[in-house]
Amino acid sequence: MPLGISEKAKNITPSATFAMDAKAKAMQAAGESVIGFAAGEPDFDTPVTIRDAMKDALDRGMTRYSAVAGTLELRGAIVEKLKRDNGLTYDVSQIIVSNGAKHSLYNTFFTLLDDGDEVIIPTPCWVSYPEMVKMTGGVPVFVPACEKDNFIPAPTAIAAAITPKTKAFVLTSPNNPNGCIWPESTLKAIAELAVKHGFYVISDEIYESLINSAHKHVSIASLGDEIKARTIVINGVSKTYAMTGFRIGYAAGPKDVIQAMIDAQSQATSAPNTPAQHAAAVALSMPQDCVESMRLEFEKRRDVIVKGINAIAGLSCRKPEGAFYVMMNVSALMGKRCAGVPLDDCAAFADALLTQGKVATVPGNAFMAEGFCRLSYATSMENILEGLRRIEAFVKALA
Amino acid sequence: MPLGISEKAKNITPSATFAMDAKAKAMQAAGESVIGFAAGEPDFDTPVTIRDAMKDALDRGMTRYSAVAGTLELRGAIVEKLKRDNGLTYDVSQIIVSNGAKHSLYNTFFTLLDDGDEVIIPTPCWVSYPEMVKMTGGVPVFVPACEKDNFIPAPTAIAAAITPKTKAFVLTSPNNPNGCIWPESTLKAIAELAVKHGFYVISDEIYESLINSAHKHVSIASLGDEIKARTIVINGVSKTYAMTGFRIGYAAGPKDVIQAMIDAQSQATSAPNTPAQHAAAVALSMPQDCVESMRLEFEKRRDVIVKGINAIAGLSCRKPEGAFYVMMNVSALMGKRCAGVPLDDCAAFADALLTQGKVATVPGNAFMAEGFCRLSYATSMENILEGLRRIEAFVKALA
Repeated sequence: MPLGISEKAKNITPSATFAMDAKAKAMQAAGESVIGFAAGEPDFDTPVTIRDAMKDALDRGMTRYSAVAGTLELRGAIVEKLKRDNGLTYDVSQIIVSNGAKHSLYNTFFTLLDDGDEVIIPTPCWVSYPEMVKMTGGVPVFVPACEKDNFIPAPTAIAAAITPKTKAFVLTSPNNPNGCIWPESTLKAIAELAVKHGFYVISDEIYESLINSAHKHVSIASLGDEIKARTIVINGVSKTYAMTGFRIGYAAGPKDVIQAMIDAQSQATSAPNTPAQHAAAVALSMPQDCVESMRLEFEKRRDVIVKGINAIAGLSCRKPEGAFYVMMNVSALMGKRCAGVPLDDCAAFADALLTQGKVATVPGNAFMAEGFCRLSYATSMENILEGLRRIEAFVKALA
Repeated sequence: MPLGISEKAKNITPSATFAMDAKAKAMQAAGESVIGFAAGEPDFDTPVTIRDAMKDALDRGMTRYSAVAGTLELRGAIVEKLKRDNGLTYDVSQIIVSNGAKHSLYNTFFTLLDDGDEVIIPTPCWVSYPEMVKMTGGVPVFVPACEKDNFIPAPTAIAAAITPKTKAFVLTSPNNPNGCIWPESTLKAIAELAVKHGFYVISDEIYESLINSAHKHVSIASLGDEIKARTIVINGVSKTYAMTGFRIGYAAGPKDVIQAMIDAQSQATSAPNTPAQHAAAVALSMPQDCVESMRLEFEKRRDVIVKGINAIAGLSCRKPEGAFYVMMNVSALMGKRCAGVPLDDCAAFADALLTQGKVATVPGNAFMAEGFCRLSYATSMENILEGLRRIEAFVKALA
């Protein structure tokens, strides 16, 4: 038969966030000064205690294959964390550790979806959900929500998207890309729908600890036994502990689903890096004051970037309640020109802002949010201030 | 719709090698003395230079996301390694690093296979190939080979398995589970078939450096430009450098296939652990004398285990030429009884050998090789001698 890649591989849209970050880094490597708001990665160094734990693992010979589901030490630490922070009780057999929360999500979709099964995804959404659903045979069903509703769809809109083929609902609170936190009343409504219609909730809680002071994170799984039995909680250490490069994520959920994920992982990848698992166990168990100090710093930065964007004529944004992303509304500038090039959509805007304005953002269309650019404020205050100056100059120069 | 896991998840047979190893470890944890020949993992410690490299990476702040395809440093080291050891010239854009060679293989199958595409797999074969093919929509087509032919099928048998749906052929030399090395004449015949009929060769070369003194490893991709353009070379650092827990594998191949694998990886998992990538780059680039000393030690152990098995009445084995596995032929003992339980197949034999004889092996049926048990001699000489004593006593006690 003819050589060439499969249809399902051809249908993948590569990660736009990585692509934009790579483009910015290439410009920087070529000697250009670029302010990067594209990457979804804390700029803090991984705390020393955690790095020391990884070194200790190496000294103690923890360099062999771990159990497929992850070390008992780490799964135990995750059980404790879910109890302490989320009021959730799981057995270690209900936990699987993977190569980052992204991998936990992929394993979840693989395990739940037969060809044609539908997954409801509220938009704007993280770039990888629809791609993962398609890669594993499912069909993404989008429920759009607009800025004036804080990017949270009404329960009636969610209910209207349910069909007999609905297998799962993706919940992301705090949200990437828009930083919103879903109110408990909406979580309760979703839980009722899931129990009534029989579908799973995939609750991506990776930004749980990056939440602004006035708010509190609630896991939908904690709202009752019935919804807990239908929820797969996804989390990891990347964002909370500035451990993105360690690649440790995890899933907690019903035993049959987790066991199937373990079986899939045993054949497709095995467990993630063993010393990193020890470092993650230490991170989850150590005193958490470094988390609090990072959280407070993100909050300061948020206030500066939100104020700065809203002070630029033609731009605006809502104040995010969590994560470290802000959705900059650029729709009022559509149709303007930059150095003769028409800015007809947010992708053209983000491209011109990078090449002409030397500021990297991710265009909203990557998140199914035309008219916006996502800015990550996981960068220094100095960069934020300089980036805002550049954005202002860029916008002023548009014709 | 009803809750529950997908059909493709239900169809997965969990990794038998991990399962047997886990069972043995559980018995050990319960205080029993078990000799483990099940795990496919070097018993050596990871060389200090490599562990120090990982510590150095942590000190230098290499703790963030790497590029999706892997760090430029590691991909560069892989390019150099393939040139130096295999006479293969690749550009860094033709290399992707993943969470172990198992993950590299999964990404390869995902990228190549549409539903119903056939993959020819000679048997006995490693447990994960057929499962990965099924997980990604393909159909495994088995070509059995018997012990008297050193477990290598004749090219005519391979040719007979080719259909218009043949998308790929899986080549594993040195082989897991049987340790055979495929002769260059057979590689040439496969290359001709691949070019003539238009299919890919997935060449799993993870045991490349664990090869006995009389032999030399040849990568099929080095046999000419046409076959190189159709080959995906799979390798990693796990077995060569006793780095199984680092989870670093890689694939090299045609640019379009590798780019599609990068796109898939960008959405499904991102890159593997960043400090481990630095450690792997150091491993590939450092003086390779530790590899040679491990190789020589494996050779000594092989000679002892092969002699020991063949000295036990009712058992026999061929001498493997590479890897660290031996296929113990137990077919002459089928029908015997152990403590009243009939040993009708190799699974019953392996189970009785573990529970009664306190020796862990992997039954051949896991590798599609009924009548055999696979023993890994990646364990100390002391364990090998004690294991042989126990096997002999177990066999003598059969009625």
